[in-house]
Amino acid sequence: MARVVVDVMPKQEILDPQGQAVANALPRLGFEGISEVRQGKRFELEVADSVDDATLARIAETLLANPVIEDFAVRRVEA
Amino acid sequence: MARVVVDVMPKQEILDPQGQAVANALPRLGFEGISEVRQGKRFELEVADSVDDATLARIAETLLANPVIEDFAVRRVEA
Repeated sequence: MARVVVDVMPKQEILDPQGQAVANALPRLGFEGISEVRQGKRFELEVADSVDDATLARIAETLLANPVIEDFAVRRVEA
Repeated sequence: MARVVVDVMPKQEILDPQGQAVANALPRLGFEGISEVRQGKRFELEVADSVDDATLARIAETLLANPVIEDFAVRRVEA
């Protein structure tokens, strides 16, 4: 078994209202110095050793991310 | 300026219906060998160099994560 992390973030040119809301809330709560916040998703998968990188990429782009508006990165990590 | 990543994941003992839904969909779509999926959030922040790690931890635990049900990790990354 391997642990795989898939990070999914809105593309830079896409509006990110959730991240914007966090960025706007920070000064109101007394936190200065944060100029930008973007919010995305993180998936952790437990994957059999037989699953190859091409399959993981297909899973990420069909099921975990919307490639029209999101970038994704797949990486294997030590468990 | 520094880039900071905050990963927020549901605690291991907390049910994760979104991750479960993904895990259940995978075999239906022809992807075998994925035994568990957990879904969390990833935040990317652009932070002034004056913001210290203690402040980042407070931002994460008050605004980005719910520590009752979520674990979080804060790390600085190269831009």
